[in-house]
Amino acid sequence: MGEGGAAPVSPPFRAVAVLGLGVIGGSLVRALRAELPGTRIMGWSPALGERSAAVDAGLLDGAPAAWEDAVDEADLVVLATPLGACLQMLPELEGIMLGRATVMDVASLKAPVARVAEDAGLAHRWIGSHPMAGSEGTGFARSDGALFRGARVWLVAGPHAVIAGRLKAVERLWRAVGAEPALIEADDHDRLMALVSHLPQLVSNALASVLLGRGVAPEALGPGGRDMTRLAGSNPTMWRDLLRHAPAEVVDGLRSVRDALDDVARAVEGGAVDHLEKLMQETRSWRGERS
Amino acid sequence: MGEGGAAPVSPPFRAVAVLGLGVIGGSLVRALRAELPGTRIMGWSPALGERSAAVDAGLLDGAPAAWEDAVDEADLVVLATPLGACLQMLPELEGIMLGRATVMDVASLKAPVARVAEDAGLAHRWIGSHPMAGSEGTGFARSDGALFRGARVWLVAGPHAVIAGRLKAVERLWRAVGAEPALIEADDHDRLMALVSHLPQLVSNALASVLLGRGVAPEALGPGGRDMTRLAGSNPTMWRDLLRHAPAEVVDGLRSVRDALDDVARAVEGGAVDHLEKLMQETRSWRGERS
Repeated sequence: MGEGGAAPVSPPFRAVAVLGLGVIGGSLVRALRAELPGTRIMGWSPALGERSAAVDAGLLDGAPAAWEDAVDEADLVVLATPLGACLQMLPELEGIMLGRATVMDVASLKAPVARVAEDAGLAHRWIGSHPMAGSEGTGFARSDGALFRGARVWLVAGPHAVIAGRLKAVERLWRAVGAEPALIEADDHDRLMALVSHLPQLVSNALASVLLGRGVAPEALGPGGRDMTRLAGSNPTMWRDLLRHAPAEVVDGLRSVRDALDDVARAVEGGAVDHLEKLMQETRSWRGERS
Repeated sequence: MGEGGAAPVSPPFRAVAVLGLGVIGGSLVRALRAELPGTRIMGWSPALGERSAAVDAGLLDGAPAAWEDAVDEADLVVLATPLGACLQMLPELEGIMLGRATVMDVASLKAPVARVAEDAGLAHRWIGSHPMAGSEGTGFARSDGALFRGARVWLVAGPHAVIAGRLKAVERLWRAVGAEPALIEADDHDRLMALVSHLPQLVSNALASVLLGRGVAPEALGPGGRDMTRLAGSNPTMWRDLLRHAPAEVVDGLRSVRDALDDVARAVEGGAVDHLEKLMQETRSWRGERS
């Protein structure tokens, strides 16, 4: 992936259209403007306020009210909407964007997008991206040009998109904004996300629901309790789509955590502190803390 | 609690002995040295390396190998050991420390310490403290002089300790290091901690145990997953004692989270996204995020 030599390198795309200016899309236009200043950037959000804010911040070369008007000159179209809107817009792009343009989404699940891209005849022009970065907040106001620095970005690409150099160009774009791209199969990605993203999210919601049911104020939490309930503040609209398409591993994982909690409750009740200490030592070793 | 006027205020204690130089004790000697430079500070740890490190850092006026030798001139003795050691050492202090000295512990549960203080005839000289601050790391190397800034510190005190001005002096000490002390009853404190401390801790361990059982590497986690497993790296030795004395509310809370996860699993399995979105909206409102 190294660029090599000292010769100036042209930006990976001449013109980028970012559809969706929330935390991910907004952060991407901020980072692209800063790191790839020669790139033309069009943006779109369903919210006029977000379009105006991005234009006023000097981040966009245009922000039309209709998303179709943002894409016509782009050689990269980025779908940065919630998953449901992404699945609706992707097939419509086929007849609107340039014939040579690459389309990339940033949804947290990749298999549903891969299927729609295939059905729409866009598989050879599609690169799936999933930046492992975000915020429990929502919208352009919470975007951050440094969001992707050091973040893993999972990439999914079919053979034609790889051969045509689309994967390499998208990798260069992510590296330019400080991210660390890595290739993965769509199904493998979604199975992993079930465990590292859906499961922690829903466990945080379950814990928070118990605390709120018991009348605990968030201000009564210490730093550990705040960590454990931060995700409980995540955007329900974004998650609604992800849960509709949740891989089966989410349900299995939730039931395993349920069973683990049942085991812990019995151990606490029975004073089985050796058993609990062993569990804590195992998870501490896994987490990489010094013992 | 205001000091009032412009007259110089004497430090709340002339000489402090801190027994235990881990994250809490080590951070306290750092903060006291910085904020109350006129105070004599003796320290003790069972680990020679921690005693030497604290002396070499200029934080202590002495660090004898036997804890009994650290307390004889102190007008405040701070027990900053794990709860089990705290409960053993507290009665022994009765014949060793100055007759007018105040003894304070920093354990995360207060009712067990209150009982031992009562049995040892020390209730009138004891102030229980619980700073809501810490680290998933362990030991003096992870101590931090800024640890208590902005942190809630719960205080438990009997009527005699209040009348004698001991509570006021301890409050001044905590305010001097940037903390926000507040008075609470021991049983109320422990019921609250069952929900805001023990419960998040054990949920983090349960989640981490499932992830490690499924072969997920911690490096595969995003920022949310890292938040949710940070507590799984906590110190098992400290928690062993806290779990031995766990209030009944811990078991009830664990079973409520278990039931909440069972409900979430059924909803995901059945595609009940409206139900899940409602749960997420409720926890988001509770957490105070913008919707």
